[in-house]
Amino acid sequence: MQIEILCTGDEILTGKTVNTNYSHIARRLGEVGLAVVWGTTVGDDRIRLAAAFRQASKRADAVIVNGGLGPTVDDLSQEIAAEVAGVELELRDDWLQRIQKYYSSRGREMPTTNRKQAMLPIGSEIIDNPIGTACGFALTINKARFFFTPGVPREMKRMVDEQVIPRLLAISGVNVVTRLKRFHSFGIGESRADQLLHGIIDTGAEESIKLGFQSHYPQLETKLVLQGHSVKELQQRLAPVEAAVRERLGNFIVAEDEQTLEQRIVDVLRSSGSTLATMEMFTGGSIAARLLPLTGTEGLIKRGVVSRDLNQLIDAAGIVAGSVNSELNRITAVALADGLRNKTGSSHALVVLIALDEDAHGKIFAGNIFIGIADQVGSTSRLARMRGSREWIRLGAVEMGLDCLRRYLFGLPVDEPIDFEERL
Amino acid sequence: MQIEILCTGDEILTGKTVNTNYSHIARRLGEVGLAVVWGTTVGDDRIRLAAAFRQASKRADAVIVNGGLGPTVDDLSQEIAAEVAGVELELRDDWLQRIQKYYSSRGREMPTTNRKQAMLPIGSEIIDNPIGTACGFALTINKARFFFTPGVPREMKRMVDEQVIPRLLAISGVNVVTRLKRFHSFGIGESRADQLLHGIIDTGAEESIKLGFQSHYPQLETKLVLQGHSVKELQQRLAPVEAAVRERLGNFIVAEDEQTLEQRIVDVLRSSGSTLATMEMFTGGSIAARLLPLTGTEGLIKRGVVSRDLNQLIDAAGIVAGSVNSELNRITAVALADGLRNKTGSSHALVVLIALDEDAHGKIFAGNIFIGIADQVGSTSRLARMRGSREWIRLGAVEMGLDCLRRYLFGLPVDEPIDFEERL
Repeated sequence: MQIEILCTGDEILTGKTVNTNYSHIARRLGEVGLAVVWGTTVGDDRIRLAAAFRQASKRADAVIVNGGLGPTVDDLSQEIAAEVAGVELELRDDWLQRIQKYYSSRGREMPTTNRKQAMLPIGSEIIDNPIGTACGFALTINKARFFFTPGVPREMKRMVDEQVIPRLLAISGVNVVTRLKRFHSFGIGESRADQLLHGIIDTGAEESIKLGFQSHYPQLETKLVLQGHSVKELQQRLAPVEAAVRERLGNFIVAEDEQTLEQRIVDVLRSSGSTLATMEMFTGGSIAARLLPLTGTEGLIKRGVVSRDLNQLIDAAGIVAGSVNSELNRITAVALADGLRNKTGSSHALVVLIALDEDAHGKIFAGNIFIGIADQVGSTSRLARMRGSREWIRLGAVEMGLDCLRRYLFGLPVDEPIDFEERL
Repeated sequence: MQIEILCTGDEILTGKTVNTNYSHIARRLGEVGLAVVWGTTVGDDRIRLAAAFRQASKRADAVIVNGGLGPTVDDLSQEIAAEVAGVELELRDDWLQRIQKYYSSRGREMPTTNRKQAMLPIGSEIIDNPIGTACGFALTINKARFFFTPGVPREMKRMVDEQVIPRLLAISGVNVVTRLKRFHSFGIGESRADQLLHGIIDTGAEESIKLGFQSHYPQLETKLVLQGHSVKELQQRLAPVEAAVRERLGNFIVAEDEQTLEQRIVDVLRSSGSTLATMEMFTGGSIAARLLPLTGTEGLIKRGVVSRDLNQLIDAAGIVAGSVNSELNRITAVALADGLRNKTGSSHALVVLIALDEDAHGKIFAGNIFIGIADQVGSTSRLARMRGSREWIRLGAVEMGLDCLRRYLFGLPVDEPIDFEERL
């Protein structure tokens, strides 16, 4: 089945708004095994909208139109759909009542302009929008089934997931359930992950599990997609492959599915009644910024400190001058972590320092990252040398600091070599 | 002139990558008065690429193709362009030498696969790419002039600005110079800015200056676009309108054109030999994170501290227990700023505290933001009450903290009411 996504609206066409609706729809469709083959963008312009609808109706089997269902004069989707389909618009009382109810439940009267949102081409199937007044609808034009969706992202997302995808799967004739399993790892690049997972899917017995990667440095996402006839069947088929991925990627897996590295750290700290303080040198507060917005971190993250100046950090950790030798190294990182713990009354402290090479110039930098972690009973440290752009090192240092803390909290080795560090 | 942007590549088509290249090109073209009327996306697929090229060649006057100029087998732009234009590919020695030089200057040998990047359709005009090995080119197919650009964003951006836009303006037959003047403001919404600037352009005398807004909360961008025949003419016509915008938006303007609020703060601190420390309560280190990545802030920003716990902040500021009354208010904010200044040896300190309402629940929060600023000779404070989502308040508090510091450093009133705060 050939699917086209047709995005409408001047904001998108002129680039004022980045078209994240397109990428969301395409990605969601891809995840359930439906392939988009064309993407088209046109503005709020009658002639070009009609041309785009006509063109899509002849080359695609299904078309998802996004935008143009609002109450204002430049929202033209229903009108142009009717024109191209050669039918009239009619007032749909069922949807009109929905809009009126929407307003009355908010203690307001429906503006007359919203009546327009209940005008649909004759023969349209209404597609429910439980959270807005824009009426989704489906209509066949020439050889294609058109699905009209609202431009408001959260309305569109819900409609695509709950209404459009099941209909597309039904049209495509395949009665399938899809499962997407995701592993988030840190420390291995795509090609190494590919090698590590080589042969993991016995293509003789199990041809329909698809293995894929999505690299967003510093993390790598490993995906397993499979389709079948029931959730139970998928679980059974997935279980051995899932276990094999966990075994082969091992300690590098920082989280699965909707989990995140930072949420796992917060969860394990909370479950043991622990608290944390952080100290950063090069990462500009990005480590604290990953943890602080999570819910329930208010009492848990006691303090975050950032400075490029080691003497400032020594002072902030409440260490008596002279008791550390003011050198950037692993010993200092641990001493700072221990001092910070005492100073803030936290059970744990994470310190990430950096010493950039003196000859660092231009766009390529290199430097040593020193990580120190301390709690009531012990401490650990890690040295990693990285080379790359400033931003590359910064992102790598943030992730490595958080990952070392995860490893420490879960009793895993913190010094396992990663692909992004230079061998010393 | 009708322009189409044609984006190629599976990553874009499947939504794996959000298509920011499209929005960048469309926006840049719009800024110089060129209108994009179609956007098309296809994958790395011979049949659909050829169909898309053919279709664009018949309906547009100019087509900007993005992507597909790389060295790998799925980079198909030159090949399909030649096919649709009905010409052969030829090896362009001039570009081959450029690639070889690119590699040899980096002490590496050119991989043989890169030879492919110097194969262009016969009759193509080379479009320079000074920072990469992908060769841009222009070619006429049917009625349209095609411009092929690389998918790598920074190569594409430079090529569009320096090479493609001047050629498009030349084709469009209008020999115009365009000027885009931007004002960045904080504290006024789009509708108030619109009111404040009402009638600013005397449409009788000056119909061709276009006034526009782009709201990206918490900042608002006010744009003036005008076209003419020389830079000097534009400057003369723009000067009175520019002055009027400055007068009417007044202290709310935080920066102009490529300037940023944070860079202006860093610049004025540096020029007076000042240093800064920051303390944040609700903003998760975002204030420090706006300042620290700027160049030259290493010695300038001495320390950043973040905590949700006032007692932690009092300790971090080195204030003796009992000397402040541990209440969240403006006096405490100033006391913390003064303590932090002494503790860190900074000339200036900025403190942003928040007290969320106790009944804050669900998705809507309200709270009081307390800002304290101190330097060697004085101090100031500001209270603002905000209501909205957690993220809305967070973003507002970050911007307000930085803006108050700007106002203090430039001798402007810090207590001018803004549109985003509730009247107390």
